[in-house]
Amino acid sequence: MTTETTDTAAAPTAGPASTPLPHDDLQPHAHAHERGGEQAGEHSYVHGYSPTEALRLGDQADTLAELLHAGTAYPAGSRVLEAGCGVGAQTVHLLASSPGAELTAADISADSLAQARARVAAQAPGAQVTWHHGDLHELPFPDDSFDHLFVCFVLEHLADPSAALTALRRVLRPGGTVTVIEGDHGSTFFHPDSAAARATVDHLVRLQADAGGDALLGRRLHPVLAAAGFRDIAVRPLTVSVDDSRPALVEGFTRRTFVAMVESVRADALAAGLSTAAAFDRGIADLRRTAEEGGTFHYTFFKAVAVNP
Amino acid sequence: MTTETTDTAAAPTAGPASTPLPHDDLQPHAHAHERGGEQAGEHSYVHGYSPTEALRLGDQADTLAELLHAGTAYPAGSRVLEAGCGVGAQTVHLLASSPGAELTAADISADSLAQARARVAAQAPGAQVTWHHGDLHELPFPDDSFDHLFVCFVLEHLADPSAALTALRRVLRPGGTVTVIEGDHGSTFFHPDSAAARATVDHLVRLQADAGGDALLGRRLHPVLAAAGFRDIAVRPLTVSVDDSRPALVEGFTRRTFVAMVESVRADALAAGLSTAAAFDRGIADLRRTAEEGGTFHYTFFKAVAVNP
Repeated sequence: MTTETTDTAAAPTAGPASTPLPHDDLQPHAHAHERGGEQAGEHSYVHGYSPTEALRLGDQADTLAELLHAGTAYPAGSRVLEAGCGVGAQTVHLLASSPGAELTAADISADSLAQARARVAAQAPGAQVTWHHGDLHELPFPDDSFDHLFVCFVLEHLADPSAALTALRRVLRPGGTVTVIEGDHGSTFFHPDSAAARATVDHLVRLQADAGGDALLGRRLHPVLAAAGFRDIAVRPLTVSVDDSRPALVEGFTRRTFVAMVESVRADALAAGLSTAAAFDRGIADLRRTAEEGGTFHYTFFKAVAVNP
Repeated sequence: MTTETTDTAAAPTAGPASTPLPHDDLQPHAHAHERGGEQAGEHSYVHGYSPTEALRLGDQADTLAELLHAGTAYPAGSRVLEAGCGVGAQTVHLLASSPGAELTAADISADSLAQARARVAAQAPGAQVTWHHGDLHELPFPDDSFDHLFVCFVLEHLADPSAALTALRRVLRPGGTVTVIEGDHGSTFFHPDSAAARATVDHLVRLQADAGGDALLGRRLHPVLAAAGFRDIAVRPLTVSVDDSRPALVEGFTRRTFVAMVESVRADALAAGLSTAAAFDRGIADLRRTAEEGGTFHYTFFKAVAVNP
């Protein structure tokens, strides 16, 4: 069950995210069923699918775009697949960095895909993107359909990232590259240090694991890519270090990205019995303290580039 | 109580580290006493002063030199003070990067200073260095004696790093810069993850705190420099990320630097009751596992440059 559409500058632009779009009737649980429930889908996406979450992802991408996308530019005419485009937070940056590339953006969530289309229509109105609604484990494209794959903040939500990469490698031509970007919540540290704050981050890691994902994936991108058959694997750490000299990151990364992300699992953490309300709120307060004067906050993303032999 | 000597190409070269040198009669505890015991000195240096430790520091500096020293080059004729040169692990790299700079290297340990002289004589035989034996909190130099300060892996051993930097700032001319490099053991993470391995790292942090230092100093360089009166503070994270694609770092950093450092506090950790022998050894074994095939290891240093207003 896959659908595909192409947006161009001449096509009707998608409306705001709240506007009904053609794929809204496709429910994610159907895909989960098709996959035999083995992979995490929309139903288990740890961060949820609220408008607030979409805003958070947009903020995150814009603040971090320079860091994450530096060095990623695909030649005009090259066939690029963004697997797991979500709400299009990275898509708009891919389009900006690689004008002329033939971009296909795929996601398992019809609602996210609709938001991605709306975002691209608003932020890159002249861009041409082929939108594909489907599961990245079962892409209908022929072998060797793409020159490059781009997979950002996707594998962390899957139970078997090497299996996903193996499936994706099928549609990548020999000699083509895959670029994978992931965070690692275990890389988080801050000043002032706080056991309560560390505990809230641990809860997020635990909830993501319970949902079948791995919030500590960044650290193992090399072995995961190797297990999927990729070669010439180069993984670079991209460490975000926030202090008083970087007010835009204090606001855009520490507060609006990281603390907001941890705070978003409050109800789930309490429901799962991982924390009391008081302990969770103390942890959040201590995390917020790291964004005040004299505080610092540090987090490492990993960006891997590897070749399909 | 300070002494000063100058080595030049024409001066008698210092012998190997075991050769008695003029300052060997100066005992570090005398300096500790002079400081009122407030600051950590040789007696409380958590890593100890063994030949093995000196070798470890040399390995560490050589492996990491490119990372840590990139961008640090002082003009010919500029007056540079390396405060806390230790066994000269960084000194030789400073000399290589800044030919023609007038380097003064100071340390509180006569024995370390002797080793530093020997190292420079062996590795940079034409270099001219003014060696100063004394406490960086009580340097005898007039105000504004230096154009630049370089302080690497020193402040982590001091009880009050801002006080040390304030004392150092006195001998730095207005407009001069300080460069500070520190690690942060709390930035450590690895694959496969292991609670036992994390515990051994925590023991090292605890022992260093018990000795009056702070193995988590890297994360707070910005506020520490601000409190010492520096301005235009720019702190950069330097993350070392080790996997199968980097065999030199697997050996030189993960095994010979980090695991060796943690292993070196085994006796102290057991004596302090922080761990059992079995638990400690399991932690070390798990740390070593991260240097085997498919393992990864990650650590963040911080490099700060700031201006004396």
